[in-house]
Amino acid sequence: MAGRIYSVRKLGGIIFLILQDRCGLIQVVFDKKTDNLIVGSWVEIEGEVKEEKRAPGGIELRGEKLAIISQPAEDLPIDLSKKELNVNLNTLLNYRPLTLRHEKVRAIFKIFGTALEAYGQIMRQLGFTEIKSPKILGAASEGGANFFTINYFGKKAFLAQSPQFYKQICVGAFERVFEIGPVFRAEKHFTTRHLNEYTSLDAEMGFIENHEDLMEKLTEVTRFIFEKIEEKNQEELKLYNAGVPVVSKNIPRYRLAEIKKIIKEKYGYEVPSETDIDPKGEALAGRFAKEELNSDFIFLTHYPTAMRPFYTMPDEENPEETKGFDLIFKGLELATGSQRIHDYKQLIKSIKKFGLDPKGFSFYLQAFKYGMPPHGGWGMGAERLVQQLLNLSSVKEAALFPRDVKRLEP
Amino acid sequence: MAGRIYSVRKLGGIIFLILQDRCGLIQVVFDKKTDNLIVGSWVEIEGEVKEEKRAPGGIELRGEKLAIISQPAEDLPIDLSKKELNVNLNTLLNYRPLTLRHEKVRAIFKIFGTALEAYGQIMRQLGFTEIKSPKILGAASEGGANFFTINYFGKKAFLAQSPQFYKQICVGAFERVFEIGPVFRAEKHFTTRHLNEYTSLDAEMGFIENHEDLMEKLTEVTRFIFEKIEEKNQEELKLYNAGVPVVSKNIPRYRLAEIKKIIKEKYGYEVPSETDIDPKGEALAGRFAKEELNSDFIFLTHYPTAMRPFYTMPDEENPEETKGFDLIFKGLELATGSQRIHDYKQLIKSIKKFGLDPKGFSFYLQAFKYGMPPHGGWGMGAERLVQQLLNLSSVKEAALFPRDVKRLEP
Repeated sequence: MAGRIYSVRKLGGIIFLILQDRCGLIQVVFDKKTDNLIVGSWVEIEGEVKEEKRAPGGIELRGEKLAIISQPAEDLPIDLSKKELNVNLNTLLNYRPLTLRHEKVRAIFKIFGTALEAYGQIMRQLGFTEIKSPKILGAASEGGANFFTINYFGKKAFLAQSPQFYKQICVGAFERVFEIGPVFRAEKHFTTRHLNEYTSLDAEMGFIENHEDLMEKLTEVTRFIFEKIEEKNQEELKLYNAGVPVVSKNIPRYRLAEIKKIIKEKYGYEVPSETDIDPKGEALAGRFAKEELNSDFIFLTHYPTAMRPFYTMPDEENPEETKGFDLIFKGLELATGSQRIHDYKQLIKSIKKFGLDPKGFSFYLQAFKYGMPPHGGWGMGAERLVQQLLNLSSVKEAALFPRDVKRLEP
Repeated sequence: MAGRIYSVRKLGGIIFLILQDRCGLIQVVFDKKTDNLIVGSWVEIEGEVKEEKRAPGGIELRGEKLAIISQPAEDLPIDLSKKELNVNLNTLLNYRPLTLRHEKVRAIFKIFGTALEAYGQIMRQLGFTEIKSPKILGAASEGGANFFTINYFGKKAFLAQSPQFYKQICVGAFERVFEIGPVFRAEKHFTTRHLNEYTSLDAEMGFIENHEDLMEKLTEVTRFIFEKIEEKNQEELKLYNAGVPVVSKNIPRYRLAEIKKIIKEKYGYEVPSETDIDPKGEALAGRFAKEELNSDFIFLTHYPTAMRPFYTMPDEENPEETKGFDLIFKGLELATGSQRIHDYKQLIKSIKKFGLDPKGFSFYLQAFKYGMPPHGGWGMGAERLVQQLLNLSSVKEAALFPRDVKRLEP
């Protein structure tokens, strides 16, 4: 058995050692004198595995031989053997190479890994092809100031804010595609919900009737992810006293206008008119869903057309509203999606209406010029999913090496 | 059944229509008069599925009802119904939204998708945790000029050339990690083997004896990927007359110095002394492996220490050579890996020896200061794997939307 010494306790002549390997913690008992048991050392231990109800995991190793493979060059500045790290966010991140070794921190990323696995698995089951779209773009076509610029051999290029155009183009070839990849947002936010680089779980599918098909699919996908986490990460969930949420087949769906009225009547809060809905509004929508509908999730639909991107399909019955939605999980936007405009001429009209120039979109428009089926998709934030599941106070805790306005390291 | 009209043929009063859906092609027969059958249209067809040995896939649909869902706004400039596209690389890429719809082009990315799936699956089976490391870096610590620079809120930042430092740091927490993600190389190459952005299949694992453990693991992983492709992509492989290569348990291993001697003696080619091995040398190593050893693969080991990155473990018996390797597939470097230096003091010495300043590596070094097990890993190019499998003339054909010195679009 090989791993790192997590903690050492001596009781009489007996040494109790907790060993951390890639699976978890195991108790090792030595009744011989054993020197040099420095916490943080990497060791190989030979011995016999025995049942022991009082040990973590129900088993312990009766140690016979111990070989030290590698040792810390300095004392550890943070005690990793405590159940709770109790360090502030800055310390947690400045000492990331070390704090990642804490069992409770590690748990976050084991769950994160399961979420990635589950997303790929369910998407493939549903007939989606995995794609990898480029992150370096020649043009920031979508507009807006939220692009990071790159020096690309002397030319100005941009970091992709999302795989949006590419996944739509790919619907024309593969009908159903998904992508797991980084997205980059040059937003000056410094909040507990935002990262300037995060992992987006994207999807785009053809032959939908409308956005309701998408919400149905997204519900299925979300349920699968949480089921997988429940199946694989019992130990990790326990460390956070967290249970996976119930994802019912019928997550409540409310129109944005409707939920704003409810929020105002129930909680006396008026969503500022210059936003579609603000974070406080989302939080209250989540509270309403939990208190009145007993659901951790709520879909908000029919966002205003003027506040969604130009490619969003307007509702035929009221073109001021879109066939778009957000999925709110415990009061936080987890995913956003919509049906897209698939008609070439309607798309050009929409681009112009948004004050943009169709010439900047020639490659994107090529797909539509030669025919596209009705389609739509979503983007879901992987870090937010884990944040909300474990009730972490900041999304930065759910990113291995988070990037924000002030943080580019480690 | 829903899909796109791939081709239309009329014979007497009967219409033979080939429909492309997300799975493949199917023949549809109409014996009634049916108008508006424009190639490229998206349609929904009702009918009865019958066995028909002469049809592709062995079945055909007897069409009864046809609804046109969406039509091209202009005639298609490229005939997608031909078996071979026969366009040059520039046209192929300039019309990517369209050419991706060709059955043979689409096949490349179905195989690519399988490779991604297989990599994740085998790595998880082997106990590796999936990670997502940041692509925006505060410092270009590794040195070299091959970094793209970013304007990060007024500060200079860099695009990750690889997840190297992060995956090593993560070994300290998870012991075994893998990542599937984009890497960015600001190399001015304009070749059939290089992309400025590609998908890297990375791994890093602790508690290895030496680099031979890694080669063994990488062999297992590579075999699994090709087995999965063989299982899932028979149709796609057939379009290229390609068979998956045999990945034997004992891929031949040659020291670099040794293979150079062989190449010189056998093929009269002297590898230029300023390189470790050049592309022509790799190609000849591949030829030697195929002709003399009947293997599509060959491991080259013991690259010179001075020509590998500072973190590479030198061979104890001859510190001028490393415990590093390249995996050559049909004469092209597919993967590169090595055992890494895990001792804190040795690592600092190596950094200095390479003329670099340890101060620039404080976060990376933190992991080593507090103890790291012996470890190593590899990076494998996903696009190259598909390129070589299908014998594509350029790696750019195996990237959905490739980036090179001249190409930033689509």
